[in-house]
Amino acid sequence: MSTTSPLLVVGSVAIDSIITPFGSRDRSLGGSATHFSVSASFFADVGVVAVIGDDFTDEDEAVFHERKISTENLQRIPGGKTFRWAGEYGFDLNVAKTLDTQLNVFADFKPQLSDAARKSPFLFLGNIQPTLQREVREQADARFVAMDTMNYWIESVREELQKTIAVVDALIINDAEARQLAEEPNLIRAARKILTWGPQMLVIKRGEYGAALFTADSFFAIPAYPLESVFDPTGAGDSFAGGFMGYLAQADKVDEVTLRRAVIYGSVMASYNVEEFSCDRLRRLKPEEIRDRFHQFKQFTHFEI
Amino acid sequence: MSTTSPLLVVGSVAIDSIITPFGSRDRSLGGSATHFSVSASFFADVGVVAVIGDDFTDEDEAVFHERKISTENLQRIPGGKTFRWAGEYGFDLNVAKTLDTQLNVFADFKPQLSDAARKSPFLFLGNIQPTLQREVREQADARFVAMDTMNYWIESVREELQKTIAVVDALIINDAEARQLAEEPNLIRAARKILTWGPQMLVIKRGEYGAALFTADSFFAIPAYPLESVFDPTGAGDSFAGGFMGYLAQADKVDEVTLRRAVIYGSVMASYNVEEFSCDRLRRLKPEEIRDRFHQFKQFTHFEI
Repeated sequence: MSTTSPLLVVGSVAIDSIITPFGSRDRSLGGSATHFSVSASFFADVGVVAVIGDDFTDEDEAVFHERKISTENLQRIPGGKTFRWAGEYGFDLNVAKTLDTQLNVFADFKPQLSDAARKSPFLFLGNIQPTLQREVREQADARFVAMDTMNYWIESVREELQKTIAVVDALIINDAEARQLAEEPNLIRAARKILTWGPQMLVIKRGEYGAALFTADSFFAIPAYPLESVFDPTGAGDSFAGGFMGYLAQADKVDEVTLRRAVIYGSVMASYNVEEFSCDRLRRLKPEEIRDRFHQFKQFTHFEI
Repeated sequence: MSTTSPLLVVGSVAIDSIITPFGSRDRSLGGSATHFSVSASFFADVGVVAVIGDDFTDEDEAVFHERKISTENLQRIPGGKTFRWAGEYGFDLNVAKTLDTQLNVFADFKPQLSDAARKSPFLFLGNIQPTLQREVREQADARFVAMDTMNYWIESVREELQKTIAVVDALIINDAEARQLAEEPNLIRAARKILTWGPQMLVIKRGEYGAALFTADSFFAIPAYPLESVFDPTGAGDSFAGGFMGYLAQADKVDEVTLRRAVIYGSVMASYNVEEFSCDRLRRLKPEEIRDRFHQFKQFTHFEI
């Protein structure tokens, strides 16, 4: 029986090979839809729209099932191979060097939402080709739609990307992407400019420097959770988006108070995600650990007037 | 008659030549002691320990006098030339390219505190040679001593620098300096390491990303004030330190609540300082403008639990 999840994500499910200064893993379950949905699943039921190949194992799929993530829209292509990404991080851990990308089944990915999936009130468009993102957005009845993107799309299909940005409620990107997208080195001005293109809000991920939320008439910013060791940054942005959207879907509203809390939850989830390879840390994360760091964020940022 | 100011600063008074993407100024009053003291003067009486030459004009000195900054320990060297610095900023405004440095009278600077100056309870050691900083610290009876430093000293006189760090209460540096000083890319670990060397606290300036305060058992961090235009970043760090130390001197205590507020005041002062060349913006700053941005910081960072 087909169910409508309060939150739907379209994106990649990938098999990554990752090298960090602290170790390497040859076969690491990854992809934007994976990191997003595992993170969001702590807050709301999530459905995943993605594509996989025959090499996607029961063990891989178990990661979704153990978190009660709906895989009804996870399409398996017989004879196909799952999207593969290989990357390496240096000691600063900020930028991944891509060693290899094999699109495989992802090359022909044409997301088709089931009738149930179309009705999800919250939708996240993970980092895929902007025209595809827009096609998904058009299929969906979602009340609140957020999207991610990356430098590759900004450089190669800027016009298409702007059309997609125009039809979403929130853009969730990192600060370098915001500057590049707006062609404006000052982040605040870049944010103001992007907001004129259509979205109600812009969420900026700043890695070790935290996150910021811009709307037409408000600004909110927080530092990152102070981690003494970052093991593998892969998926940090998507687990941020998962915590952010998951909390909004759980609260079932999008007012300023809820949005600010959502930024904190996003930051909490990203802070856990980077502590281990793949989704390993989130797979054994406990709800009280999320609450702990949420409250620590209050301690870290509170001052008396 | 000689007076004891609640706050004393030792550092440079300079005549800068500055080029930014938005304009240039050939003769711009600068130096760490200048930016620090003008900023701090909004909170407490400040005394400056520095050296100048014959080329330091009445107009230059008026900047100190109009802010009621004590120049009793500002030594004028007859026949000498004031320290000169020429620098250029690119569009990212984060790093100055030094075009020229002429130490002039600063080359032989041997700060000697007057008896009154020794009694100042709060002391800031601006970015000068670490051995000189330590000699000043040893002359002073100050109850609370903070210092700045830079990559040049970290690279050239690391051992001397560590000895000085060991005898101050607070180190106020930027994040790149903290990483370099601790030889540790992770900022949180870098901070923990530096705290084992002696200081009770470390204040990290992160430019457009804000500031953080580390003590042995607490962490506090805030974003930067969201400026749509940064005109001239020269002196941002010193005006931050001025607001921070000025507020502590005004409060006359150094507890966690006061320290956190001091970080906000530092950030407020830096945010104004960078809006125009030299001290131009601070010279016409009004106390209510400081209060405005202080309260805006609360709005920018507040979230409900």
